[in-house]
Amino acid sequence: MNSTVPNALVDGVATGRIDVQDRGLHYGDGLFETLAVRDGRPRFWSRHMARLMAGLERLGFPVVDERQLEAEAESLIRPGQQGVLKILLTRGRAGRGYGTIKGQAPSRVLLMAPWPEGLEAKARAGVAVRMCQLRLGQNPILAGIKHLNRLEQVMARSEWETPEIDEGLLCDGGERVIEGTRANLFMVRNGTLLTPELSASGVAGVMRSVVLDLARELGAPARVKAIHRRELSEADELFLTNSLQGIVPIRHLQQQQWTDWPLTRRLQEALATTEEGTAWYP
Amino acid sequence: MNSTVPNALVDGVATGRIDVQDRGLHYGDGLFETLAVRDGRPRFWSRHMARLMAGLERLGFPVVDERQLEAEAESLIRPGQQGVLKILLTRGRAGRGYGTIKGQAPSRVLLMAPWPEGLEAKARAGVAVRMCQLRLGQNPILAGIKHLNRLEQVMARSEWETPEIDEGLLCDGGERVIEGTRANLFMVRNGTLLTPELSASGVAGVMRSVVLDLARELGAPARVKAIHRRELSEADELFLTNSLQGIVPIRHLQQQQWTDWPLTRRLQEALATTEEGTAWYP
Repeated sequence: MNSTVPNALVDGVATGRIDVQDRGLHYGDGLFETLAVRDGRPRFWSRHMARLMAGLERLGFPVVDERQLEAEAESLIRPGQQGVLKILLTRGRAGRGYGTIKGQAPSRVLLMAPWPEGLEAKARAGVAVRMCQLRLGQNPILAGIKHLNRLEQVMARSEWETPEIDEGLLCDGGERVIEGTRANLFMVRNGTLLTPELSASGVAGVMRSVVLDLARELGAPARVKAIHRRELSEADELFLTNSLQGIVPIRHLQQQQWTDWPLTRRLQEALATTEEGTAWYP
Repeated sequence: MNSTVPNALVDGVATGRIDVQDRGLHYGDGLFETLAVRDGRPRFWSRHMARLMAGLERLGFPVVDERQLEAEAESLIRPGQQGVLKILLTRGRAGRGYGTIKGQAPSRVLLMAPWPEGLEAKARAGVAVRMCQLRLGQNPILAGIKHLNRLEQVMARSEWETPEIDEGLLCDGGERVIEGTRANLFMVRNGTLLTPELSASGVAGVMRSVVLDLARELGAPARVKAIHRRELSEADELFLTNSLQGIVPIRHLQQQQWTDWPLTRRLQEALATTEEGTAWYP
């Protein structure tokens, strides 16, 4: 560890601790972003910031200075570093009760962690996934944004322990498939790329938005729509997306299996050739 | 402030700060209890502990030593003190991702705050409440327990700023009324006490359980059932319950108003004569 570069900043101060009265702890009253840092550079920074700012607005937070976040992020990243940057904003210190204090500055937490092993292998070979029992609740006010109320994801992830299963897919109460516990889902059917509509549940991932743009550039028809879990049996290809893993083909889902993913592979190649994806994506 | 008695304990240590990697902050992965402390004694301790332990089991936490919590609570409370004790348990320090570490000891946070002003006056005169726009999501795994994912309550509470409105009532997506942002709801109709069924949304409050027991002792018929918001117009009395406020009559709800609350008053009197309610409840 380079002792001159901290791993954590709280409101700009190098510390591993936060006020025990913080509303992030008490209510999950905040948002986060998880960014791939490759060769010393946070990837898809602008898209992450756009989602973060949309989340701040949705939750009624005051505006946050993006340049301050950028400067703090830079101060945590060593030249050429591979890692994961987590940015967490909360509504600040709690008073008594749920009511908020107008204009109170959010708490800023920035954390650097090592780059996880094995992601390239998964992107090449594909992964096995399962269907989760848990059903996601529906709430349009909280859907799409990456807020700190993540107990559904924690409980869904606790449904399996077998390391062979890489991810679990989640449906809402209407049996519409929404996403994985930490990834968005895409499906290819008859040459069309489909991904679940997220107006009442789920997180609209940054890599999901990248893939939708790449599909457009490749001329592949793509639609965002409600997908019933039944429709998964009609999938010619399935893949997952998230900001660290990029695009990951699904090899097994319950009784189904796939061994080649033509459109998924084209999208992976397209991602690898973008400026943000270069030097990271296999 | 008495300098020998701290206001906050984290894992038994007098400190106002917590590990920035705590899963309570990152995911809201934990539970809390808010207890009335009157004359130096936390009220309804056993009921709070029972709910807390039920929540721990639901979320798959390891067992927590109640005597340790009790000893820590006692070390925060001065003799004869009036105040509010908040006990917050999280799943401990986060690794990477939502997966949990088997047997990891929960983090324990205990906080003492001053007793809020004005509660007695509200219990006497009644309060005005409104209907919230936000609809509570449904999730049986998280319903009933007092977990740390409270963004719905934060967002509902942000719907009004007028201080004359004391509380907002929340419905689920099926237009069933569930609870207030920080209180449970009771309704009296034709001599029967009704309170919403909470199997998919809401928090099963400690004071709610006290009131259901008091009704039984008074011989008043009481039922837990789904209540459509339409049914509120048939209410002969409405009241709120929570662990600090006890039993609070509703004076106004939108166009409706009430000026006497015979059963509510009987329940208030019954609460005041219980051992736990004595010396606190008006």
